[in-house]
Amino acid sequence: MIRVGIYGYGNIGRGVEKAINESKDLELVAIFTRRNPENVKIYSENIEVRAAQDVLFFIDKIDVMILCGGSATDLPQQTPELSQFFNVVDSFDTHANINDHFNRVNDIALKTKHVGIISIGWDPGLFSVNRVYADAIFNHHDTYTFWGDGVSQGHSDAIRRISGVKYAVQYTRPITEALKQVREGLNPKLTARDKHLRECYLVVDKNADKESIKSQIVTMPNYFAEYNTIVNFISEDEYFNDHCKMPHGGYVISSGKSGNNKHLIEYSLKSDSNPEFTSLILVAYARACYRLYKEGQYGAKTILDIPLSYISPKSNAELRKELL
Amino acid sequence: MIRVGIYGYGNIGRGVEKAINESKDLELVAIFTRRNPENVKIYSENIEVRAAQDVLFFIDKIDVMILCGGSATDLPQQTPELSQFFNVVDSFDTHANINDHFNRVNDIALKTKHVGIISIGWDPGLFSVNRVYADAIFNHHDTYTFWGDGVSQGHSDAIRRISGVKYAVQYTRPITEALKQVREGLNPKLTARDKHLRECYLVVDKNADKESIKSQIVTMPNYFAEYNTIVNFISEDEYFNDHCKMPHGGYVISSGKSGNNKHLIEYSLKSDSNPEFTSLILVAYARACYRLYKEGQYGAKTILDIPLSYISPKSNAELRKELL
Repeated sequence: MIRVGIYGYGNIGRGVEKAINESKDLELVAIFTRRNPENVKIYSENIEVRAAQDVLFFIDKIDVMILCGGSATDLPQQTPELSQFFNVVDSFDTHANINDHFNRVNDIALKTKHVGIISIGWDPGLFSVNRVYADAIFNHHDTYTFWGDGVSQGHSDAIRRISGVKYAVQYTRPITEALKQVREGLNPKLTARDKHLRECYLVVDKNADKESIKSQIVTMPNYFAEYNTIVNFISEDEYFNDHCKMPHGGYVISSGKSGNNKHLIEYSLKSDSNPEFTSLILVAYARACYRLYKEGQYGAKTILDIPLSYISPKSNAELRKELL
Repeated sequence: MIRVGIYGYGNIGRGVEKAINESKDLELVAIFTRRNPENVKIYSENIEVRAAQDVLFFIDKIDVMILCGGSATDLPQQTPELSQFFNVVDSFDTHANINDHFNRVNDIALKTKHVGIISIGWDPGLFSVNRVYADAIFNHHDTYTFWGDGVSQGHSDAIRRISGVKYAVQYTRPITEALKQVREGLNPKLTARDKHLRECYLVVDKNADKESIKSQIVTMPNYFAEYNTIVNFISEDEYFNDHCKMPHGGYVISSGKSGNNKHLIEYSLKSDSNPEFTSLILVAYARACYRLYKEGQYGAKTILDIPLSYISPKSNAELRKELL
């Protein structure tokens, strides 16, 4: 059994807890939180909930720590810090900063002889795998990533910061016509506006100025200005009934050529729960983390650096027989 | 530049030749054939075509040999034999015998310090990758592989062996209703007949007994008896106009669950040319073969054993920046 710890207990932490409990080769040892542990309710029975600062008492009791914090401020600090003492897996997803994060974790993990697997999930993650396959296989191709239908946490947060907004959720939706052109192998040039629509559902304060809120949203640079955006004002009831799930998904479509022959690869995901799906992938990579550690392959790794067989509980001969 | 040889010059060999010529980091050194080299016309200029038995003159001139023979009789013999002298990549695709083939290549390649990458292509290959991801990530799931629309070489050959048949091609077609049920997350139990339809186009001799030929096809065990099969008799003109391409494709669809949440992953391929698509993948794995060899990671490997970054001409830092 691989002994696993969870560091951070939000949506991802809860998903990781569930996934470990359902797997046969992993054992949950403890959950670490920055909140008062007494106030944290978990699903599992007989599992310790401990304060984050107690983590060092567990150095010999945990083989792999799964870090379940956010990419904005938690992981940039926590992953390097904890990789001094533990093998770690995180879901760092700020694409522009991945190399910096990698280098920081790599330096520390190499020195302290640990393995740090970063940026695990579906994008970065499974979607990246498909982008790299297309890039390596095809000499001529266009590869497109579409996201949605699904809830974008970052865009939802941006709306919630507007004065007068009580609750808000933003759905990213791929534009059907763009998807169609890509699938037909037309290799179109697409702007941000051509690829995705943004649709927002808001609950606002009684006396809020709806027109002003709407205008603040649709003109917000980087988040909405570059897209067509639909703003819907809804009741609190409707919000809590229909908009509290966290579905997500998307597409990586590669349209390649060899001579006159076309080759189209489409990878798509449709998940009822973005955090639970991400958690399932994180947990599978805990296996790889432990195996790399046992082999002395220390340092930072990404999904691109790890043989796929390392994430499976099956032996290589079983995989060749049953799934290859 | 990685120096590559092609061993066997049929459809795959020609595809590999094209793919190497289009890539920037690979150099084609020679093509080996069992036919008289003087009668073999190739696309490339200034590339040697040599008799298969001359291959040992090239031991120091070729970094990776791509084996382009068939899985029935060529590769089971050639891959172990050539892995005594070369690093090799093959597309061995008889699923039931992969472990035997692996073990034979592994023994020899370990002894002679070579790398032998076997069973590269799309199934086994890219489809296997998707099956293993689903199996490793989901604790509860059903994963379905569908093939088609496309030409099955084995089934076409089986028809051609019937007396009175001049030309024949067999298309494997996934059944739309089955695909639909799987996509809807209904996790149906499906028989061979539920999943695929087999459609045949035949040119027969003038006086052939069509009813007898049809009956011999639809009752043929292992090939057709377990499926619904449509048999079309066509003219020679129609055959040469419409049925000499080799398109193929298929789907790997995984329908997973965590608690009450569903997660659907669909991977699909639609290729105008099965051999050219397979060739593109073989050529990318020649890069991995050479890199594993340089690192001293000898022995047999499959697509499941090799980090994805090894097939890319880009550096790991570039991959993290551009594609992760």
